[in-house]
Amino acid sequence: MTMPNGYSGKILRVDLTRLSSEVEEPGEIFYRRYWGGKGFAGHLLLKEQSAGTDPLSPDNLLILATGVMTGSNLPAMPRFTVCSRSPLTGCFGESEAGGWWGPELKFAGFDAVVVKGCAERPVYLWIRDGQVEIRDASRIWGLDTVDAQDAIREELGDRRIRVAAIGPAGERLVRYACILNEGKHANGRNGMGAVMGSKRLKAIAVRGTKPPKPFDPEEVHRLARWYAAEYLNNPTTRILYEAGTPGLLSGLQASGMLPTRNFRSGSFEGAESIGWDAYRQEIFAGPRGCFGCPIRCKREARVEGRYTIDPRYGGPEYETLGAFGSACAVSDLRAIAKANEMCNRFGLDTISTGITIAFAMECFENGLLGIEELDGIELRFGNADAMLAMVERIARREGIGDLLAEGSARAAAQIGRGADRFAMQVKGQELPLHEPRGKPAVGLGYAVSDIGADHLLAVHDPGLQMRESAILKVMAPLGVLEPIDTLDLGPRKVRAFYYAESIFAFWKAAGVCNFGYAPRVAIPFEKFISMARAVTGWDTDLFEISKVGERAINMSHAFNLREGIRRRDDRLPERFFEPLPDGRLQGTALSRQEYEEAVTLLYQMKGWDPTTGFPTRGKLAELDLDWVADLLCSAGVTAW
Amino acid sequence: MTMPNGYSGKILRVDLTRLSSEVEEPGEIFYRRYWGGKGFAGHLLLKEQSAGTDPLSPDNLLILATGVMTGSNLPAMPRFTVCSRSPLTGCFGESEAGGWWGPELKFAGFDAVVVKGCAERPVYLWIRDGQVEIRDASRIWGLDTVDAQDAIREELGDRRIRVAAIGPAGERLVRYACILNEGKHANGRNGMGAVMGSKRLKAIAVRGTKPPKPFDPEEVHRLARWYAAEYLNNPTTRILYEAGTPGLLSGLQASGMLPTRNFRSGSFEGAESIGWDAYRQEIFAGPRGCFGCPIRCKREARVEGRYTIDPRYGGPEYETLGAFGSACAVSDLRAIAKANEMCNRFGLDTISTGITIAFAMECFENGLLGIEELDGIELRFGNADAMLAMVERIARREGIGDLLAEGSARAAAQIGRGADRFAMQVKGQELPLHEPRGKPAVGLGYAVSDIGADHLLAVHDPGLQMRESAILKVMAPLGVLEPIDTLDLGPRKVRAFYYAESIFAFWKAAGVCNFGYAPRVAIPFEKFISMARAVTGWDTDLFEISKVGERAINMSHAFNLREGIRRRDDRLPERFFEPLPDGRLQGTALSRQEYEEAVTLLYQMKGWDPTTGFPTRGKLAELDLDWVADLLCSAGVTAW
Repeated sequence: MTMPNGYSGKILRVDLTRLSSEVEEPGEIFYRRYWGGKGFAGHLLLKEQSAGTDPLSPDNLLILATGVMTGSNLPAMPRFTVCSRSPLTGCFGESEAGGWWGPELKFAGFDAVVVKGCAERPVYLWIRDGQVEIRDASRIWGLDTVDAQDAIREELGDRRIRVAAIGPAGERLVRYACILNEGKHANGRNGMGAVMGSKRLKAIAVRGTKPPKPFDPEEVHRLARWYAAEYLNNPTTRILYEAGTPGLLSGLQASGMLPTRNFRSGSFEGAESIGWDAYRQEIFAGPRGCFGCPIRCKREARVEGRYTIDPRYGGPEYETLGAFGSACAVSDLRAIAKANEMCNRFGLDTISTGITIAFAMECFENGLLGIEELDGIELRFGNADAMLAMVERIARREGIGDLLAEGSARAAAQIGRGADRFAMQVKGQELPLHEPRGKPAVGLGYAVSDIGADHLLAVHDPGLQMRESAILKVMAPLGVLEPIDTLDLGPRKVRAFYYAESIFAFWKAAGVCNFGYAPRVAIPFEKFISMARAVTGWDTDLFEISKVGERAINMSHAFNLREGIRRRDDRLPERFFEPLPDGRLQGTALSRQEYEEAVTLLYQMKGWDPTTGFPTRGKLAELDLDWVADLLCSAGVTAW
Repeated sequence: MTMPNGYSGKILRVDLTRLSSEVEEPGEIFYRRYWGGKGFAGHLLLKEQSAGTDPLSPDNLLILATGVMTGSNLPAMPRFTVCSRSPLTGCFGESEAGGWWGPELKFAGFDAVVVKGCAERPVYLWIRDGQVEIRDASRIWGLDTVDAQDAIREELGDRRIRVAAIGPAGERLVRYACILNEGKHANGRNGMGAVMGSKRLKAIAVRGTKPPKPFDPEEVHRLARWYAAEYLNNPTTRILYEAGTPGLLSGLQASGMLPTRNFRSGSFEGAESIGWDAYRQEIFAGPRGCFGCPIRCKREARVEGRYTIDPRYGGPEYETLGAFGSACAVSDLRAIAKANEMCNRFGLDTISTGITIAFAMECFENGLLGIEELDGIELRFGNADAMLAMVERIARREGIGDLLAEGSARAAAQIGRGADRFAMQVKGQELPLHEPRGKPAVGLGYAVSDIGADHLLAVHDPGLQMRESAILKVMAPLGVLEPIDTLDLGPRKVRAFYYAESIFAFWKAAGVCNFGYAPRVAIPFEKFISMARAVTGWDTDLFEISKVGERAINMSHAFNLREGIRRRDDRLPERFFEPLPDGRLQGTALSRQEYEEAVTLLYQMKGWDPTTGFPTRGKLAELDLDWVADLLCSAGVTAW
């Protein structure tokens, strides 16, 4: 059966301990209240999982959820989310990916897959048009991600099967192991691959032939044509089309905010060697994209010789160029491309891997890690081969890799002697490659993020975007009517962040790529609302959408409260309150007072107590989350 | 000059002490941030007026403000608001009216008139196409409202002039004196007529020939045609068209919630004699309406004989039928029509007048007022002639009328001996004719209203409306997806109230009549948004609109905080916690616990401290009202 409104209406439940499955149909209001992704997962993780569940135990639910918009015939809506309690942060865990897997799951008749328990021996799931099979994975356990994918396709005799798989890193429970589909679309962050590994679940293979019908196919078609005619006229979408995210690197270097040497500096002397011009000339092999998206922001790379890479694993994106390039002070683009290939092969998050290695480099240079502890490797900034050796060790948990596989926060605690000052992490997750001193709203986002430091929380910096009047116009329906200075972190910036955060949380729930629709891309909200209406048939609008986003945020926040997370955990590394030593922003630091005030204001805007972080019962009721208030109350983490 | 987006861009400032005027042009962002009416007024009253200003002193600003939509060629957008510190409540004062005056002011080139000071001798303002004249009113001082209007028209030699005037009650500073245009469109509540009287301002006459152009005239035309084709298919709009508000009375009686004998009961034995069937047969003389509105919900009445009325003053609406009818236990429709005519003639609010008399009746029947104190009048429930005698005495402040002209709260304090238990008022303003025990959300609205008991705060009862699936569909874009029981006052009802309250505050700011657009009328929000866009050219939506409404509410709330108003003042009369003695709802009472919890939840939803009512700085910043936070801080009424 295909539903006439963008979703299949069915959620697949799999119990790997019992090797059983069932199908749940939660009804239309559930879909409209939560929209998918983080929304579904927040609901399930709060209702069905106890506080204190070990992230790597069978009791931890692993939820792979599309959104109501995922897989519609509109551009840039390929995304799905994996959620669980994170083994990296101990918080609500969440990681989105594009590619083809999400749409394929929906075409196979399911909006989400919820996995609990743990198989006795390695297995994979085979989902095909409403049916599921739990199959033996002994033969593919141990394989790299694309090899596993190919083996499954071969075993099932269908090249068009989409596979989300873990690699050796997930099998070995590296705390920031990821899940990959097509070898290059990663649910990268929060160690969702380790959760999958802990369940002995190597992969989920899907094949579907029945896309849900949109409510109004003609309108969907019309809007898709509008988008296709528009996206190259828009500067941001055009850059993404032409250069992908690597196109952003040179601008950040010029602005003095390219994270360099583990965020010690914002200016990298080797930036030119790793920017888009070099990339295009030296390693670019063509654009790649996701289901239904004309932007095709992903890059394929080709490298031969010393750092030969397997092109099936794609080329590095901006975050990876930053993490293995400027942050490790490596200016050899081929070595970075190799690190990227290895991460995708082994199933490692490139950001956490790169920043954990940068952390180790700084520890080494400061005498906190000796060469004997580093298995004889001279792990200096700029040493590309040492860096690559570390990637492999981490994936296999060999030698020092076993410590670094725990992430920078745990490693720092183990090393001691003040090593934590070199761990560029929030709530245990390593920072993406955006310099808070140059984009203070991103810093605010890192700090308050429910999933640890994350750069997909809101507009990268509402102020940054405000300089363009076209973008200001896009933000106007949110009531943001005047430009805000980029370096400002005052009340108006916090307000813009708060509004944008809800919308971004909605994109994540609904399966929408923020590259295709976020304010800075200057696609009017009005157009997106028309799209949402055409797909779902619901008379929705920006008000409802914003509340859906805020609802998802409050559910993950409640999850964290139940796990003991408090405002004190919304803590940026000290480094960002010290001035940048060089580059265009030389001398710029975050003001601690302004930053603390910003967090307080944001909490108040959210209806959260600024000391404890407890939401008021009224705020939860306003989001139709009375049940969360009751749950927090009985968990004893609030006092109403 | 006419502006291409629904407003003239000019605000007229008049100083009656100095007999001077000036024109202010606050710029487009001001208009988009506040939209008009209460939004403009909140901004001005907070920024320009000191706390503790005597409402009847020259320093109290009197603001007459249209909204951005007022006078557009769309149906049901004729409204303007008068704001000031209220002499009845001491709170933020606000009262809207329909008719023609608002559109005419805008056509004359002004979006608002702000009056300060006090003239030495009576004056009126004459505003014509961008010019203003302060004219001597000695000749018309003392005249009834329509006589004053006619005298001005004659003096200026133009029958098409629109006049907002006070009558003898406003001149004598009756605390609930109102302002009338066309003798039947009242800015009824909060005593705005007394403020006008205190300034010796008899009237404001306007004539304009230059309507602002809408941004997209063709779209406005198309939407107006859509409305014209639609409104008779809609049950609520159709009732208003056919029977006006008097059509509501019989349903309320049948439901057991027709306020009777000063709210002692919800069932009136004489209901049939004062309902729409009797009205139509006995006194109805035709429908009347407001600028540009096809609904024409106003009634003209004709009565000859003992209670002969001047038809220029219109016929009673539902509130007046209730106030002088069931609340005073008067079942003679002609006497009620006469009371209505007298109120409109003298410039008295029919609700406060009727309920203050009902209060006095109950005092008399309980021995708290003796016949000698009542000037020899036997003021029993049901005594129509006694009631009419009181109306006249109040308007002229003669005998007992001088006490009752102070309103029921002040009169009760004067009478003492527990008379306050018979004063059906909140914050000093008498209750409209809606029984909180039958519509608990209306009761909640009465209690928390910034302007004292008011029935235009939100949907009359979201629950009541939820029974119709069409209405539920209209509320869905606000995320209200499921029906809520009418008598419920739990979290889901409070949430629906909170959302609707913001939208209703927006209607008031923008100049829109809630009869024409409110959710219960089942005009989809989407259509209204299209209208707002077509008029203004702004890419607005429900999100922004809701914030505009919430912004206005927070400004008036801040005004009240500065005047010492606290949550303890959000207090319903005790009567409503006692069971109704008869009728369909016999035995029904509000639960005090549920009610207190509802207020707490609502405060929390609003981001206000549930004990003090102070908004958080973050909440104010979220509404772009940092300046209000600073202002409250320096007024010492918050502790951040």
